[in-house]
Amino acid sequence: MLYSQGIPLEQLGITSLDGRSCETDPRKIWKLFSQNYYLFRGTPTGVWLDFELHAVLDLKERPDEYNSDKLYDEICEKLASSEFLPRSLYERFNIEFLATTDSAIDSLNFHDMIIKSGWKGTVVPTFRPDTITDISNLQLWNSSIDTLAMITDRTIDSFSDYLQAIKKQRQFFISRGATATDHGVYQPYTGKLPGDEIEHIFNRARTGLITTEDALKFTAHMLMEYAEMSLTDNLVMQIHPGCFRNHNYPLFEKFGADKGHDIPVSVEYTNNLRALLNTYGNNPELTIILFTLDESTYNRELAPLAGHYPALKLGPAWWFNDSINGMTRFRQMTSETAGFYNTVGFNDDTRALLSIPARHDVSRRLDANYLGTLVAKKIISLEDAVEIAKDLTYSLVKKAYHVK
Amino acid sequence: MLYSQGIPLEQLGITSLDGRSCETDPRKIWKLFSQNYYLFRGTPTGVWLDFELHAVLDLKERPDEYNSDKLYDEICEKLASSEFLPRSLYERFNIEFLATTDSAIDSLNFHDMIIKSGWKGTVVPTFRPDTITDISNLQLWNSSIDTLAMITDRTIDSFSDYLQAIKKQRQFFISRGATATDHGVYQPYTGKLPGDEIEHIFNRARTGLITTEDALKFTAHMLMEYAEMSLTDNLVMQIHPGCFRNHNYPLFEKFGADKGHDIPVSVEYTNNLRALLNTYGNNPELTIILFTLDESTYNRELAPLAGHYPALKLGPAWWFNDSINGMTRFRQMTSETAGFYNTVGFNDDTRALLSIPARHDVSRRLDANYLGTLVAKKIISLEDAVEIAKDLTYSLVKKAYHVK
Amino acid sequence: MLYSQGIPLEQLGITSLDGRSCETDPRKIWKLFSQNYYLFRGTPTGVWLDFELHAVLDLKERPDEYNSDKLYDEICEKLASSEFLPRSLYERFNIEFLATTDSAIDSLNFHDMIIKSGWKGTVVPTFRPDTITDISNLQLWNSSIDTLAMITDRTIDSFSDYLQAIKKQRQFFISRGATATDHGVYQPYTGKLPGDEIEHIFNRARTGLITTEDALKFTAHMLMEYAEMSLTDNLVMQIHPGCFRNHNYPLFEKFGADKGHDIPVSVEYTNNLRALLNTYGNNPELTIILFTLDESTYNRELAPLAGHYPALKLGPAWWFNDSINGMTRFRQMTSETAGFYNTVGFNDDTRALLSIPARHDVSRRLDANYLGTLVAKKIISLEDAVEIAKDLTYSLVKKAYHVK
Repeated sequence: MLYSQGIPLEQLGITSLDGRSCETDPRKIWKLFSQNYYLFRGTPTGVWLDFELHAVLDLKERPDEYNSDKLYDEICEKLASSEFLPRSLYERFNIEFLATTDSAIDSLNFHDMIIKSGWKGTVVPTFRPDTITDISNLQLWNSSIDTLAMITDRTIDSFSDYLQAIKKQRQFFISRGATATDHGVYQPYTGKLPGDEIEHIFNRARTGLITTEDALKFTAHMLMEYAEMSLTDNLVMQIHPGCFRNHNYPLFEKFGADKGHDIPVSVEYTNNLRALLNTYGNNPELTIILFTLDESTYNRELAPLAGHYPALKLGPAWWFNDSINGMTRFRQMTSETAGFYNTVGFNDDTRALLSIPARHDVSRRLDANYLGTLVAKKIISLEDAVEIAKDLTYSLVKKAYHVK
Repeated sequence: MLYSQGIPLEQLGITSLDGRSCETDPRKIWKLFSQNYYLFRGTPTGVWLDFELHAVLDLKERPDEYNSDKLYDEICEKLASSEFLPRSLYERFNIEFLATTDSAIDSLNFHDMIIKSGWKGTVVPTFRPDTITDISNLQLWNSSIDTLAMITDRTIDSFSDYLQAIKKQRQFFISRGATATDHGVYQPYTGKLPGDEIEHIFNRARTGLITTEDALKFTAHMLMEYAEMSLTDNLVMQIHPGCFRNHNYPLFEKFGADKGHDIPVSVEYTNNLRALLNTYGNNPELTIILFTLDESTYNRELAPLAGHYPALKLGPAWWFNDSINGMTRFRQMTSETAGFYNTVGFNDDTRALLSIPARHDVSRRLDANYLGTLVAKKIISLEDAVEIAKDLTYSLVKKAYHVK
Repeated sequence: MLYSQGIPLEQLGITSLDGRSCETDPRKIWKLFSQNYYLFRGTPTGVWLDFELHAVLDLKERPDEYNSDKLYDEICEKLASSEFLPRSLYERFNIEFLATTDSAIDSLNFHDMIIKSGWKGTVVPTFRPDTITDISNLQLWNSSIDTLAMITDRTIDSFSDYLQAIKKQRQFFISRGATATDHGVYQPYTGKLPGDEIEHIFNRARTGLITTEDALKFTAHMLMEYAEMSLTDNLVMQIHPGCFRNHNYPLFEKFGADKGHDIPVSVEYTNNLRALLNTYGNNPELTIILFTLDESTYNRELAPLAGHYPALKLGPAWWFNDSINGMTRFRQMTSETAGFYNTVGFNDDTRALLSIPARHDVSRRLDANYLGTLVAKKIISLEDAVEIAKDLTYSLVKKAYHVK
C-alpha cells in the first residue's frame, strides 16, 4: 500500500540486491508508516492493524505522525517482555494447531528444535513441492532435485527415482507431524501422461532442454501423481492456482524474492481439473482442497464441483480470506450450491503471528453474520446456526486437515 | 449433496448399469436421507424441502434419524390419498399453464393422453432438438435423424430434407400446444454457412465422418436456421449454453444418463451471438430468451445485449434460479441495464411437482424484496412496484412465452 | 431502452442515412417517450430522468401519456429561458472544471470560442487519439493521419514523423487546458516493438496493407509511446478497454456512427498490461487511470494492480458509473485491496448537461452509504469517513486529473 502511493521500498527499510543504502532506523520507518496509516482505511490490513494494536498490544490510539514516537516506545517495551514471546502468544491466543508451509526440500530443523525443546504446543510442517515440480523454472528445479537427492540419500536418475524420493520426503514430513501438502500452480491443468513420455520430459528437464508445453504437461501429470501419493500416505492435498508470480519484474530484479508482487489471473477449473477428478474425485477417502483468487469461479465452477465430487472441498477465500467483503461474497456465492459441509471452515494463512487473532475474529464475525441472516430469514433455525458456527470455526477444519 | 459427502448412489436406491444390487427398501433410503438432512442447511434444496414438507405435506417436524419412520408413514399415507394425485395438486397449486421439455423426436403420446382425457388443465410440450442438432454426438444424432425421418414420414437424404422434417415436427408440437423451443449448447456460437458447406457437413455427419470444427459450425448454423423457423412458426426460442455435460465420466459410465453430473463453464455471448443478433435480433416479432450459468456475464454481456436488441429477453437465472442469493444477484446485476421489461419474469424448471409452489414462493419473495428496496430508496414508487411485481410473476411470463 | 422494446429509431426522430422520412414533430416524439416512461423503472436512466425533471426542471409529475402535452409545454418554456442557458446551468450546478473528450485531430475551435468569449468558467479538452492510433480501421486512420499532418503543418512520412506530430498536437491541447488523454482499446495489449518493426508496420498501414496482428501490435506499441509522452508532457493517461463497437452492424449501416451500439466483452489486464506497468508503472510521477466494463476484473486484477503499482489508479466504474448497484459493487470489490487512495473519486462522463447533478448526487449518496456502513461496523471512524467522503468527491479527483 505504501509503495503503491509512491513511497520507495528503500525508505521502508528494504535493501535492494545491489546493496545500496536504505533507511535503517526503525523509528524513522515507523514514523513514515504512522504518517501514512490513513492509507489503510477500509482495507483488511487496516482492520488487522487496528485489532493488533488495540486488542493484542493494548495501545489506546491509532498511529499518526504526532504519536508515532510514543507508540514506538510502547510497542518496543511490550515486544521485549516475556509475555510477547512467540510461545506466550501461542498460549494467549489459545492456538491448538499451527502448520507452517515448508519447501519440500527443507530440513525441518526448526521443527526438530521445537520437538526437542519439549514444548507442548503443536507446530507441524506442510509439504510444498513447487520448486521440485515446476520445471518451467528449470535452474531452480534442477538444483532442488539435486538437494532432494542429497537429503533423501538417493540417486535420482529417472522419473521413477524422482517419485520414490518425493515419497520418502513426504514420509519425513509426516514423521514431523505434517498432515497436508500445498500446490501452487498457474493454471490447474491435470492429466496423466504415458510412462515413456513423462520419463522423456523428466530427462530433458534434467539436461536443461524443455518446451513450454513440456512444463504444462509435467505439472498436469504431477498433480495426478501427488493425488495418487495422498491415497497412500493420507496427506490432504491443497491446490491454489491463478497467480502471476513476480508480475513487477523490475522490482523483483532489484529486491529479489517475494518483492516482485503477485497478481491474480482468470482461472479455469471445470475442464482443467476433470482428469484429476475423474480419476480420484469419486474417492471419499481422499481430500482435495481448492482455493481461488478468481471470484467469478465461486458459483460457476467451484461450488458445483465441490457440491458433487466426494473428494473435493473448498478452502476459505485465499488472498481475499482476510477481506471482509471478499469473505462475505465467498459465503454468498458458494454456500447454497456446495453446502456448508463441502467447505473446510476457516484457516488463516498469515505470516504475522500477531495478526492471527484478528483474522479469526473477522472470519467468525462474518460467518456469524451470514448465519444470523439465514436465521432472520427463517432459512435455518437458530439451533442449526449454532451448530454450523462451531463446524465452520472448529470441527470442519479439524476433519478436513486430519487434525487429531 | 449426499453423494458429495461420500454416500454411494447405490445406498440411495440408484442401480448401476451392470445391475449390481442396490438398496431397494425405500424406508431405509428415507432414513439415510433423514439422518443427513442437516447437509441441506442453507441450500436451495433445503429451502424447497422445508417448504414441501411443511406447506405441501403439512408435516410438523424436519426429518432426522429419530422421526424418520414416523414421517415416512405420514408421507406415504398422504401420497396415497386422492388429494395428492398430480391433477389435484395442479389445481391446488393454482397452475394455469405447465410446459414439459420434450425431445424433438418424442411421440408426445402422454400429451395426447392428457388431451383425450378431457381434463381441463393445460400441459403443453416444448420442442428440444438437441439430439437432432448436435452432430458431435454422432451415433445418437444419426439414430435420432432416422427416428425423425420415420415419425415425420419423410426421406432425409439432404440438409434440405432435414430442415423440412424439423419444420414438420415443429408443426406437430405446435398442434399439441407448444409455444417454445429449448436449445442447449456448450457455447452459443452462431453463424450461417454457405449452402454447399452445410450440405457437405450434413452428408459427412450422416456417413459418420466429421471433425470437431464441423460440429461447432453445424450447431452455429442450426441456431440461425432455428431462428429463421421461429420467424415463420412463431415458436419462442430459448438458448441455454455453458454446461459441461457428464463431467463425472466414471459415474456416467456406471449409472448412465443424467448421473454424470453437469458443471458450468465460462461462456462468451458478445462475439458468439453477434451473427444471430445481427440477422434476427432487430426483429421485434421474434423472441429469443437467453439463460446463463455464468454470472460474470450478467452485467457484462447479457444485460447490455437484452437492453438493446428488440428480439432478445433474459430468462430467469437458470440453475441458480432456485438459489436465494443467485436470484437476488440476477436482479441486482441485470435490472438496471436491461430494465425489468427485457426480462421474462419467473419460470421454474423443476422436475419435482411438489416443489413448484416453493420455487415460485421463493422467487416472488426475492423479487418483492428487490422491489421493496427500490421503493425504500425512493427509486421507484410503491405503485410502480406493485405493477412490476405482477408483471414479473404473471404478465411478462405470459407475453414472453406466448401463453394465451 | 425504447428500441429494445420494439420502437423503431425513426419514430424517435432519428433519420437513417438513406434519408427516409422519420418522425420530425418533437411533441409526438415526447409523447411516445412519455407513454413508455415506465420502461425506465429501476434503471439508471430512470433515476437521472426523475432527478432532472424534478430537481433541475422543477416538474411536479412523472411523464405519462396523459400529462405529456402539458409537460412538453412546461419544459419548452423553461429551456427557452435565460436561466437554462448552458453557462447559467454551469454556474447553478456549481461546476469548477468541465473536460470534453475531443478527437486528437480536432481544431478545438469551440474551445477557442469559449476562451475568447471571456467567460470565467473552465472547459478544457481531453486528447483522444483513437482514430490516429487504431490502424485496424485503416481508411479512417489514413485520413486522420492526413488531417494530423495538415493541422500540425508537418510531413508524416515515417513513424518518427508521426510521433512528432502527435507530440505537437498534444502541446496544442495542453495550450487549451487539457490535462488528460483518453484511450479506447478493445483489449489492453501493451508491448514495445523494435524500431524497424514498428516502422515497417507504420509504412504498411500508410500504403493500406496490414494484417490483424499488425493492428494489435501497433496499438500495443502505441500505448507504450503514449505513456512515454505523458512522462514528458505530464498528461494523465486514461485507458478504457473492453468494448465491442458497433455490435449491431445493420443498425450502424442504416443510421451511422454512434447508432451501432457497443457491448462489453471479457477483458484481461494482468498479462496484457504487464509490459506497460513494468516499464512505466513504478514511476509515481506518472498517472495511468484504468476503467473497466468487466466487473469480474475488479477484485481479481484491477484492485491488486492498483494496490501495487505507484503509477496506477482506478477510475470510477465507467459505463456502470451511473448504476446504483454497479457503483456499489465497485466500492465493495475494489476498496479493500486497492484502498480508497488508489482510486480517483468520481468523474461522470455524461453527454447530457442536465444530468450532471443527478450523476454526482447518486455517486455521493452511494459512497456515503458505503462509508456509513464501514462506520457502523466500526471499521473506520466517523472522522475518517468525513475525510474520505471529501477526498472521493473532490480532492482525489483534482489530484488525479492535475486540476489546479
